[in-house]
Amino acid sequence: MTAVMNSLPATMYAVVLHTTTPTMDGWRVEANHPIAALGEKDVLIKIAASPLNPSDLSFIQGMYGVRKPLPVVPGFEASGRVVAVGQALDPDAWIGRRVACFSGANGDGTWAEYMLTSSLNVLPVADHIDDEAAAMLLVNPLTVWALIDIAVRHGAKAVVQTAAASALGHMLRRFGESRGLAVISIVRRAALVDELRAGGAQHVLDSSADDFDQQLRDLCRTLGATVAFDAVGGALTDRVLRGMPNGSRIIVYGGLSSEPVTVGVDQLIFRDKKIEGFWLSTWMPQHRDLVAQAWHDVQAQHELFKTDVRARFGLDQFGNALSTYANAMSGGKILIVP
Amino acid sequence: MTAVMNSLPATMYAVVLHTTTPTMDGWRVEANHPIAALGEKDVLIKIAASPLNPSDLSFIQGMYGVRKPLPVVPGFEASGRVVAVGQALDPDAWIGRRVACFSGANGDGTWAEYMLTSSLNVLPVADHIDDEAAAMLLVNPLTVWALIDIAVRHGAKAVVQTAAASALGHMLRRFGESRGLAVISIVRRAALVDELRAGGAQHVLDSSADDFDQQLRDLCRTLGATVAFDAVGGALTDRVLRGMPNGSRIIVYGGLSSEPVTVGVDQLIFRDKKIEGFWLSTWMPQHRDLVAQAWHDVQAQHELFKTDVRARFGLDQFGNALSTYANAMSGGKILIVP
Repeated sequence: MTAVMNSLPATMYAVVLHTTTPTMDGWRVEANHPIAALGEKDVLIKIAASPLNPSDLSFIQGMYGVRKPLPVVPGFEASGRVVAVGQALDPDAWIGRRVACFSGANGDGTWAEYMLTSSLNVLPVADHIDDEAAAMLLVNPLTVWALIDIAVRHGAKAVVQTAAASALGHMLRRFGESRGLAVISIVRRAALVDELRAGGAQHVLDSSADDFDQQLRDLCRTLGATVAFDAVGGALTDRVLRGMPNGSRIIVYGGLSSEPVTVGVDQLIFRDKKIEGFWLSTWMPQHRDLVAQAWHDVQAQHELFKTDVRARFGLDQFGNALSTYANAMSGGKILIVP
Repeated sequence: MTAVMNSLPATMYAVVLHTTTPTMDGWRVEANHPIAALGEKDVLIKIAASPLNPSDLSFIQGMYGVRKPLPVVPGFEASGRVVAVGQALDPDAWIGRRVACFSGANGDGTWAEYMLTSSLNVLPVADHIDDEAAAMLLVNPLTVWALIDIAVRHGAKAVVQTAAASALGHMLRRFGESRGLAVISIVRRAALVDELRAGGAQHVLDSSADDFDQQLRDLCRTLGATVAFDAVGGALTDRVLRGMPNGSRIIVYGGLSSEPVTVGVDQLIFRDKKIEGFWLSTWMPQHRDLVAQAWHDVQAQHELFKTDVRARFGLDQFGNALSTYANAMSGGKILIVP
């Protein structure tokens, strides 16, 4: 026995990935993709909106930490409304509820009319947050919350971040500052320095500038930056770590350069510096006690986690959505609105 | 007032480094190198024996974590006998005592007739340990003790080590096994596999073998190896980390390849792997509570930390000592015997 809507759909419109390729063309929009059967603790969500994130591009290219059996619907996060639940869940508590949701480690994702997933991947959304904001309130905001929490636990007075012009970078600065941390934002093009300053960032460095290394060193010492967050990899990781005081650590959460991290052995041995990674999918199960607090804070301070939307596309316009995002990943999010 | 011998020398025979160069020829043996004045808590040690270590070669080349004002006497560890002490120290407790000693972060080192250093750099030697053994009982044995302690604290059942044919590598295997850890020893040449097996090593892998990566992966999983110790750097660090289970960490304590550590971003983010460094000079001040225990264990289990001696040279033969060691760093230590 399963609690269902009067007319639960059996198929749906969806983006379906058939092969992963570097050129990101292994997908099709399909009109009759089957919806899986509800498991005991599953919920079926009618999707309201779902963003394209950097991790989505990696997934479509076959370079992400998660590889699902193909074909599969891509898309890692969304907002929507619960329309059906498995028999272990109370329909009165769930049906009709507005939620933010992840797609599971297996099974179809969010770029579809509906998503079926475990209730563990679903968080209720407060009334004051609209569907578009809710669609982008999990992956980046919870990552930012967790990173700042890590910095605070390590006793940092200030943090350094690379790729600071990204949607996540903007949030990280705002939320870090709200927690009393100074934030040193590193961008890779001079043009982005003014953009970040105009947005309120106080400490912005351009890694393409001649005096970048010296400026970073001075600023880290002045502000007491002992934790860095890196989304670039390659040689920049080493440069950032070299700029930081002895005993500092860098936490890598992305690899935009597509290059491995390189770090001088001297930095590790003689300077007591450390390199770690961060992945929300690892952090959440290891920190169940913190997730509720993080979700509370993210909703309560949702203005800090606000993400601009650049464009919206229906499922049948998915090709436009993908190329628009891949051509310029900063400057506002691209949303799929089924 | 300073407690002194009846005839305290003012100068001594010593190896004196005037410039650091990659070719390691910036030193001279000098007959009248001045001995500094005793500070309040200093001791003057008549050197009995002092080894050449990998860190000495780095120092002479100007590539070590410590750079001292030149000219300076090199050499980082030795054994000897206390012949004079500063006025804050009890002469009855110190004079005539057999000791093992480090050279300080500043000031002259051990390749000389005498060394003057802070009493903090001096540990008393038990009677059952002879001068040659005592000369090599600090740098490598305390490093090994600390590394194994770190592995135990992280709950490792087994550890991986690179450069396993080194003097330190042999000790690490023996002491690790004595603490109940399985030790996977990686060497970079097939010829060393049999040598290590003949010495009692059970798990030996050759990183130049075609099936190295698969063998490492299987062995790590079978034995539960979640901590690795790396003295090589470069691409090997990444290969070792890839072979280990999710959540593992690699601790870099040397850079024999002279190449930076490279690590795939995927290993950090999706596999939750960590990279750190280890340096005895950082560890000791941070773990004063453990040093006494470590020194007790190292002396009590000195057979585990035994290092073969390949050749002995007087100070006037230092050039021979240096070239002999630089040409073959494994196969027994080279000792300077003033």
